[in-house]
Amino acid sequence: MSSKDITSFFRFEPVGKRIEELETPVPVIDIDVVDRNLKRWQARCDEIGIANRPHIKTHKLAALAKYQMALGAKGITVQKLGEAEVMADAGISDMLLTFNVVGAPKLRRLAELARRTGISVVADNEAVIEGLGQAGIAAGRDISVLVECDTGGKRNGVQSPEAAAGLARVVDKTRGVTYGGLMTYAAPGTRLAAKAFLTEARDLAGKAGLETAVVSTGGSPDMWSKEGLEVATEYRAGTYIYFDRSLAERGTCSYDDCALHVLATVVSRPTDERALIDAGSKTLTSDLLGLKGYGVVTGLDKAQIYNMSEEHGFLDISGLAQKPKVGDLVQITPNHVCPVTNLFDRVVFVRGNDVLGAVKVDARGMVQ
Amino acid sequence: MSSKDITSFFRFEPVGKRIEELETPVPVIDIDVVDRNLKRWQARCDEIGIANRPHIKTHKLAALAKYQMALGAKGITVQKLGEAEVMADAGISDMLLTFNVVGAPKLRRLAELARRTGISVVADNEAVIEGLGQAGIAAGRDISVLVECDTGGKRNGVQSPEAAAGLARVVDKTRGVTYGGLMTYAAPGTRLAAKAFLTEARDLAGKAGLETAVVSTGGSPDMWSKEGLEVATEYRAGTYIYFDRSLAERGTCSYDDCALHVLATVVSRPTDERALIDAGSKTLTSDLLGLKGYGVVTGLDKAQIYNMSEEHGFLDISGLAQKPKVGDLVQITPNHVCPVTNLFDRVVFVRGNDVLGAVKVDARGMVQ
Repeated sequence: MSSKDITSFFRFEPVGKRIEELETPVPVIDIDVVDRNLKRWQARCDEIGIANRPHIKTHKLAALAKYQMALGAKGITVQKLGEAEVMADAGISDMLLTFNVVGAPKLRRLAELARRTGISVVADNEAVIEGLGQAGIAAGRDISVLVECDTGGKRNGVQSPEAAAGLARVVDKTRGVTYGGLMTYAAPGTRLAAKAFLTEARDLAGKAGLETAVVSTGGSPDMWSKEGLEVATEYRAGTYIYFDRSLAERGTCSYDDCALHVLATVVSRPTDERALIDAGSKTLTSDLLGLKGYGVVTGLDKAQIYNMSEEHGFLDISGLAQKPKVGDLVQITPNHVCPVTNLFDRVVFVRGNDVLGAVKVDARGMVQ
Repeated sequence: MSSKDITSFFRFEPVGKRIEELETPVPVIDIDVVDRNLKRWQARCDEIGIANRPHIKTHKLAALAKYQMALGAKGITVQKLGEAEVMADAGISDMLLTFNVVGAPKLRRLAELARRTGISVVADNEAVIEGLGQAGIAAGRDISVLVECDTGGKRNGVQSPEAAAGLARVVDKTRGVTYGGLMTYAAPGTRLAAKAFLTEARDLAGKAGLETAVVSTGGSPDMWSKEGLEVATEYRAGTYIYFDRSLAERGTCSYDDCALHVLATVVSRPTDERALIDAGSKTLTSDLLGLKGYGVVTGLDKAQIYNMSEEHGFLDISGLAQKPKVGDLVQITPNHVCPVTNLFDRVVFVRGNDVLGAVKVDARGMVQ
């Protein structure tokens, strides 16, 4: 665990001293809640003896990736090459890229990354492995490849333990890459199926003489459950750093654990049922994640954003005794926090209502 | 109409010569389709004698705003102060900001803008008008204010013609602002209601001695309909420049009129029913606009993106005789094009499969 304070990892840009001075809409992040979320999860990983490899897709900040490492994370997870490049530039030297790298330009970038940082990747088909081998040869060092398994999430991944072990053998025989292990995204409720799949795949690979050094699983929704984790060696969670409405509603966290809120201003009050705020789909995204409405206002009896246009949110104030006025500030707990930080060049860190400063979102828009 | 070719408005950055050389995911925009869409709509506005005031929220590009003006647009529409600042920097001198400006920092920015460019604004309540008056006084010149009316769209706006005329009188009496007219977003199917509302509001204002110089309406979905337009003096359309799946499915345009596609790569083929592409919600957004699926693949029998994670799109390939392979490029017609351009620092202009070059999205992320 780091003895350094979380704030020492940042260089804040001045944007005023109090929340009331900020321009809206803007994501505000309570640094003490972030600190608590990170420490609590690291302690949990330590307790159950699993490596912590947080996914930086949620915060996209080099400072927080470094702080996660200082607290004890083994490395980080990235989803795109652009994110990996930003984190390599910041000095992170252990990352897993959980995305099939495809195409000559991207393989060149991967080779370049492999030369200067510790990066492992995943693959779920032979065409991808062939390309990764070429990148490893170009880099002059073997790239570790985890075989991605579809253990019930119905996303990427090989469809059976036999196919996983088969692909592990392909990796093993391909020049420029080495077999690093197995990887899955265990969708909520699929942990036991994942355990059975991964255990069998590991054993089959073992019979073929291949050691499965890493079994990587992940997902914030079920993060506190130990179910089926026996086979896993590392855990990838992303959203846990800020949490959001979807995870509060699932019971993964409380609303008090939500570190990021979108600060917005009431700009119109056309009727007693409706207030319009200056945060719409270009701020909150249209992600529903099975919820009703596009976010809730903290402190305003969780008044719901029932509709949006691109720059306006429509707040249902029909049930409120005290109705917000034009000019009032509101703080929204977004449904899904990860894509929100991707929409802003800068986020603002706060401590309660005191502003610490703004920080550039280093890996915003790094979608390639 | 401009005699200058559309390409002469751009300074393209080199990114390869053919579409196959581009890194994915990336929005590619066919410049000839853009040109056709812009000219067709300007001709229509000229034909029915209504001023064209395109909304730049869709493209967010100074070059295209200037080209729209060169083709005959009276001015542009912006939704946020940040967009107005970018367009003022580019030399645009006639814009309407269709958003209630609220709060001291934003009013300072508005005053600054009013000093250096021609900008009118809207208001739908007295608190906003008071602030606008202060901005006008600070700018040293009156700011023209259009009263926003809710004519059936249930967004912003005063709720009755009487309230509109009443607010027009408040504007007229407030130092620093002048009454410029009426503004509405006529949601699909509300044109006749809008006509009745706006006509009555205009007449009531007239009886109070106030001239309603501008009656501004807008919306791409019903753009080709003349219904109820008699009272309007100008039209604001944004999406018509690129069009999208939602407008093709409504019949506002054909799929051939869709100028922007998202170029993506097939990165995984876990089953014969499912292909994964490298474009998810951080590329396409989760906007549904009443549609099923998150976009369709052009040329692949309109195969549908039935699910997404942040960086993956899930393509239903069950019905395809010829199934896409890992590494194949696909072009997606997005459901809603406006928020897509807001996710990318750069878009790429093409002519068929030939690449003209990349262009920075000048007003991307200008949400404040």
